[in-house]
Amino acid sequence: MRKVYIVGVGLVKVGRHFDKGLRELFAEAALKAIDDTKGVEVEALIVGNMCSSSLCEQSNLGVLLADYSGLIGKPAYKVEAACGSGGVALFTGYTLVSSGLFNVVMVGGVEKLTEYPTRTVTSALAQASDAEYELYFGASFTGLNALIMRYYMERYGITRDEISEWPVLMHENALSNPYAQLRFRITKDQVNKSQVIADPIRLYDASPISDGAAAVILASEDIARKITDTPVEIAGLGMATDKLYLASRSRLDLFEATVKASKMAYSMAGISPRDVDVAEVHDAFSILGLINIEDLGFVSERGKAAKLLCEGRFRPGDKPTVNPSGGLKARGHPVGATGVYQVAEVAMQLRGDFPGVKVSNANIGLAQSIGGVGSIVTVIILKR
Amino acid sequence: MRKVYIVGVGLVKVGRHFDKGLRELFAEAALKAIDDTKGVEVEALIVGNMCSSSLCEQSNLGVLLADYSGLIGKPAYKVEAACGSGGVALFTGYTLVSSGLFNVVMVGGVEKLTEYPTRTVTSALAQASDAEYELYFGASFTGLNALIMRYYMERYGITRDEISEWPVLMHENALSNPYAQLRFRITKDQVNKSQVIADPIRLYDASPISDGAAAVILASEDIARKITDTPVEIAGLGMATDKLYLASRSRLDLFEATVKASKMAYSMAGISPRDVDVAEVHDAFSILGLINIEDLGFVSERGKAAKLLCEGRFRPGDKPTVNPSGGLKARGHPVGATGVYQVAEVAMQLRGDFPGVKVSNANIGLAQSIGGVGSIVTVIILKR
Repeated sequence: MRKVYIVGVGLVKVGRHFDKGLRELFAEAALKAIDDTKGVEVEALIVGNMCSSSLCEQSNLGVLLADYSGLIGKPAYKVEAACGSGGVALFTGYTLVSSGLFNVVMVGGVEKLTEYPTRTVTSALAQASDAEYELYFGASFTGLNALIMRYYMERYGITRDEISEWPVLMHENALSNPYAQLRFRITKDQVNKSQVIADPIRLYDASPISDGAAAVILASEDIARKITDTPVEIAGLGMATDKLYLASRSRLDLFEATVKASKMAYSMAGISPRDVDVAEVHDAFSILGLINIEDLGFVSERGKAAKLLCEGRFRPGDKPTVNPSGGLKARGHPVGATGVYQVAEVAMQLRGDFPGVKVSNANIGLAQSIGGVGSIVTVIILKR
Repeated sequence: MRKVYIVGVGLVKVGRHFDKGLRELFAEAALKAIDDTKGVEVEALIVGNMCSSSLCEQSNLGVLLADYSGLIGKPAYKVEAACGSGGVALFTGYTLVSSGLFNVVMVGGVEKLTEYPTRTVTSALAQASDAEYELYFGASFTGLNALIMRYYMERYGITRDEISEWPVLMHENALSNPYAQLRFRITKDQVNKSQVIADPIRLYDASPISDGAAAVILASEDIARKITDTPVEIAGLGMATDKLYLASRSRLDLFEATVKASKMAYSMAGISPRDVDVAEVHDAFSILGLINIEDLGFVSERGKAAKLLCEGRFRPGDKPTVNPSGGLKARGHPVGATGVYQVAEVAMQLRGDFPGVKVSNANIGLAQSIGGVGSIVTVIILKR
């Protein structure tokens, strides 16, 4: 199998971009990524996106974005795995290069959510769960995650106050990230008293509705060595799925798909969770952040993530540092693009040029992306 | 690059399946394909689909279909390139196996269109073109194809009567195909006098609205040799794109994406158009069938496809035989599944077990799939 490297990244600030549509948002990220490689010729484009068909009346998105990024003529298409689309796009781009069919592939993600009524957007996002057995009966996406949070808190005796540590840290981390959407401090008290969205999930437990676009450029080893002194190797990948319909799962306090996908990725990279210096994990809700770091093997005992966090673990300076970007919670969550943001952020940490909270001397990084309520997970391991 | 083979196929009859949703339709095709391999263990699933998000409120389709096909836990996701989603899924599945990451991958396609009001469906299908520059101004998908038909007829002096030869042949071919939707004969006179949909496109020029699902199983060489005596090699693939916005193209009488994609595929397979015994091409409208066989190099002079057809070319017995299945026109067009149907049909022709019009002693076959108005094209070449 040919080795694959990240040779360029381009990000748009996550936020509300009322003046930009899908094509303008993505072109900005794509052109930045091409600039970052000093103009390498891209041979194909894979785009992660969830809601262009349900919200923007735009299918065939790969072609549109290729055109606006100067790549028309080249193979270009969309992959979709709900909120996990970006990680899946990266996985697909990897296979295009490692198969030997292409030498240079752009993997992008884009999402445009903020200009629609909240109810329209939450309906579109709820498509990540089972339309006939969950949506039809009125289960919202936040509601399903709330069931998990309630169960986890009761099973492991975790308090509201302990869980609130997560979003407080995320907002702290996002302060210096120029691409983050929510760059302000919050206190535990603010989290604890914020509006209930779906009990026990409160406003500050939830990632915001975001617009955004991100792109990374992948290349084969020989090309990577030619165009950059700081190529970042994709050393391991894992992907796994779990039943979409939450009620058919055997456990709700963990995501088996993360456990499986991370085992695949660790094994392929030849490392253990202990070796990871920096990780970006999919904290669409506070509870997911906690479950994720347990599923990824960063916490030795189930149910202890919040306690360790309160004791000071996972912050800048610790190994692993988790979500120095501010995570989905505070960097923001432009759904289908989020997985690509994560990979770009981790790559920048390894190159040493991430413009926010820096993880010094990071050699190994990890990005975990989730689609649905833990129903599809990708884990990608990068090495300097 | 590792060689990749088709080792199993499974098809559902194209038609109106009011009693089946996406999951039931797909599971039927998937289980048939697994049966066809006598139960090989599938390691990952790639699904082509266009309209699940816009019509069925279901994103994250890969996970849902993996669950209902007994594949849950395995990597599973959706790819989308409008009407070309099936071909793109095949392309993606190929890279998963050729990269060495997986040995056995199922590529599926599914679409559920018939239970929605026609206006809703045509709006969803129109998302294959540019939402902001075409849809917004009321250009329907059929309307855009009608512009191409008008231009082609005027440029090359083709008559209505000559074009009608295409759908007549397609209905003839579909008669014996048990998976076809429109199994009845039509006459040129019926075509010429059928209802105008978007002048000059008439009812019998257009493929029907269809439900359907198809699956093929791909495997590496060593596994293919173990489980079947009739493995079919994927000898060549090509994919190319063209500007989505039709008015920005330089030519309307041909699709540059088909020309490019077929050159890539012929070159990879080491063959020329002359070597093709059987081809399934994307005739969503009569005019596309004619343009496609010119773009693929089966016609030596531009504008002569209809005349050659009227002289008896491309029928059963000729080389290449085109659309022995009946094509999109008469087999039907379950959009995101169509590209997978085509590949399955061509594979069966090479194995000698296609249950409709047979192409005897076929060694080389080709499947061409289009997304949008020629804006993304895949060409896949199979060898016995």
